[in-house]
Amino acid sequence: MKIIKAGITAVKGIKGQGIHAGFKKNKLDFTIIYSERICTAAGVFTKNKAAAAPVLLDRKFLSDGKAQAIVCNSGFANACTGEEGMNNALFTAEYASEKLGIRKENCLVFSTGIIGIPLPMDIMKNAIDTTVPLLESSNSASENIANAILTTDLVKKEIAIENDNYTISGITKGSGMINPNMATMLCFIFTDADVSSNILEKCLKNSVNKSFNRISVDGDTSTNDSVVVLANGLSNVKVDTIDKIESFSKALDFVCVELAKKIARDGEGATKLIECECVNAKSQEDAERISKSVIDSSLVKSAVFGEDPNWGRIIAAVGYSGAEMELDKIEIYLGTLRVVNKGIGVSFSQEEAKKELQKECVKIIINMNLGNFCSKAWGCDLSYNYVKINAQYHT
Amino acid sequence: MKIIKAGITAVKGIKGQGIHAGFKKNKLDFTIIYSERICTAAGVFTKNKAAAAPVLLDRKFLSDGKAQAIVCNSGFANACTGEEGMNNALFTAEYASEKLGIRKENCLVFSTGIIGIPLPMDIMKNAIDTTVPLLESSNSASENIANAILTTDLVKKEIAIENDNYTISGITKGSGMINPNMATMLCFIFTDADVSSNILEKCLKNSVNKSFNRISVDGDTSTNDSVVVLANGLSNVKVDTIDKIESFSKALDFVCVELAKKIARDGEGATKLIECECVNAKSQEDAERISKSVIDSSLVKSAVFGEDPNWGRIIAAVGYSGAEMELDKIEIYLGTLRVVNKGIGVSFSQEEAKKELQKECVKIIINMNLGNFCSKAWGCDLSYNYVKINAQYHT
Repeated sequence: MKIIKAGITAVKGIKGQGIHAGFKKNKLDFTIIYSERICTAAGVFTKNKAAAAPVLLDRKFLSDGKAQAIVCNSGFANACTGEEGMNNALFTAEYASEKLGIRKENCLVFSTGIIGIPLPMDIMKNAIDTTVPLLESSNSASENIANAILTTDLVKKEIAIENDNYTISGITKGSGMINPNMATMLCFIFTDADVSSNILEKCLKNSVNKSFNRISVDGDTSTNDSVVVLANGLSNVKVDTIDKIESFSKALDFVCVELAKKIARDGEGATKLIECECVNAKSQEDAERISKSVIDSSLVKSAVFGEDPNWGRIIAAVGYSGAEMELDKIEIYLGTLRVVNKGIGVSFSQEEAKKELQKECVKIIINMNLGNFCSKAWGCDLSYNYVKINAQYHT
Repeated sequence: MKIIKAGITAVKGIKGQGIHAGFKKNKLDFTIIYSERICTAAGVFTKNKAAAAPVLLDRKFLSDGKAQAIVCNSGFANACTGEEGMNNALFTAEYASEKLGIRKENCLVFSTGIIGIPLPMDIMKNAIDTTVPLLESSNSASENIANAILTTDLVKKEIAIENDNYTISGITKGSGMINPNMATMLCFIFTDADVSSNILEKCLKNSVNKSFNRISVDGDTSTNDSVVVLANGLSNVKVDTIDKIESFSKALDFVCVELAKKIARDGEGATKLIECECVNAKSQEDAERISKSVIDSSLVKSAVFGEDPNWGRIIAAVGYSGAEMELDKIEIYLGTLRVVNKGIGVSFSQEEAKKELQKECVKIIINMNLGNFCSKAWGCDLSYNYVKINAQYHT
């Protein structure tokens, strides 16, 4: 498995384009991504009970495990828009699929942006008319596509890898780290591997749980969160043996984790990525609870920003995580530096601690010494302007 | 029941003082509150599994339902300080009780501030020596006491009421609204009513659940959260009949809710108080979940700050609250203005909406139309500097 310098169109048979259609004032805000051959496909969607119209439609469209194109606008989420919203999502799929010459059920639609305002369908129609003739596999097209799905993101987020003679490429968008509910997280993954939709679905669920569900921008909460993977098989590499499936699954994990980390790193005002690893927890659920609780803690985030080895805030976050703990068994490390043993602080070099906290990726390791379950979670620090009072509190 | 213009010492037989002892650079940071007569007492404490030393000690001390004095420092939380922390808390109670001439078990100790650093006991001893001779019932003493328990709070938080010929007074401190886990919430309540410790405990649990557990700074999460009530009976009014207990319970509810609202209103950078009332939910738990989910939403908070009637964010927060909902039954009001009917937006006057959002207390009412359970929760908006990007996103 190796990372290649390329975008979403690195996968055989994938074309697309991103344009400024007018959903937003002056940024790229619309994209179509198209596969020459019909793909097997799987998706993981938000659990929010107010799920957006495109989510409801895509769930239906994916029931046959097939897809061929992705149509996505940013600026408006088409969430909480009632029947009109469903009609607009359906019309978008119908109109785009007609222009692309594919079945409408194979045209997945996505929206991200403001909740509760109907999609401006005149802009949508023009967007589709304008974009379809522009589809191509160039790097510039890849770049436009990755940029067109962003909302408050500061940078585009893409990755492409080669594995077992096939390619996997993905793009994603997140948003601020203010609160999990900030996020509409979208992720589109393509591969030219030949994978059945059942295997795709199993692998994707597994990968999402290890990646997008482990960042502070949480996949469960927004009305529009969606992760889809499409496989067109054009590499002619069949993923059908246990070994090949395992290898594909690992490759998909890698793609999802890297994209999830890019979302975490791009939190508003973030200056660093934080990785929290919980080891030796009593159960898998506890390990995940603990690593996420620490990553979600504004006090920990701001301490990391302030380069303040305030381990007490880490223990507090473990304490209210709901996980089983024995305070006098807990060890905490900043990178390789142990700062807590048996639940209380040990003397350590402030300079070394500062060095660990100045790294581009700050690692917090929590050893519960209770069992053998582990989990990682990712977030970002809170920048000075964002939590002035908080970052200064300790000093 | 009527509010009186007075502080914590308004209650008969209560004396105290607040001083600058040196736990913090230059703010008041230490207080003793003392009752001439031994009190019946009850407390509600954090559920955090890393509960601070003073919390562990006070739980033990309160097992007999009696107390006579409160000793509290701000600046250091004495949490995650291991055996040394327990010894320091115990020494504080022993030393102060000796100086006050009371039993150490009747001397409750509280700390708030930085986690994980041992209490500077030299400062603590001097603080006790200095403060004990200064105890008085004056208004200035009340003011010093209320100020001495604050950390990042901007204003002191106190209330006193008269009810059925007895007095109840209370002070509290909270902190930023960045995240529930920001809070160390302390609340000290005194009354000269004559109430058994059993009744006190029942009433307090009930009041705390309706007040401090309904604000965005949540009582469950910090290592030090504590609410205690002490009753010295000096009014000679016995609270022993069903009517009198109900009246006392209502009065205590009022005191706790008013103090809780003061904490919410004082969130860092807050410009407004937000009250979210959920009505006609399927269950009591659902009603509480929904009102708290909306209050905790950074998107709702910033929309209120931006005076942006972005009701979609409110529905999204209801959607991920975990409560039962039927989207097409939901009504949402800003104050008296209905903005959502049957789960989708209705046309309303933007000016009227703005008026509602410009009020000092912004009211959001969510009608689930599913049952007959109701709940209120309180929080504050997020100010411009705090979530620039977020408040501007919609416009």
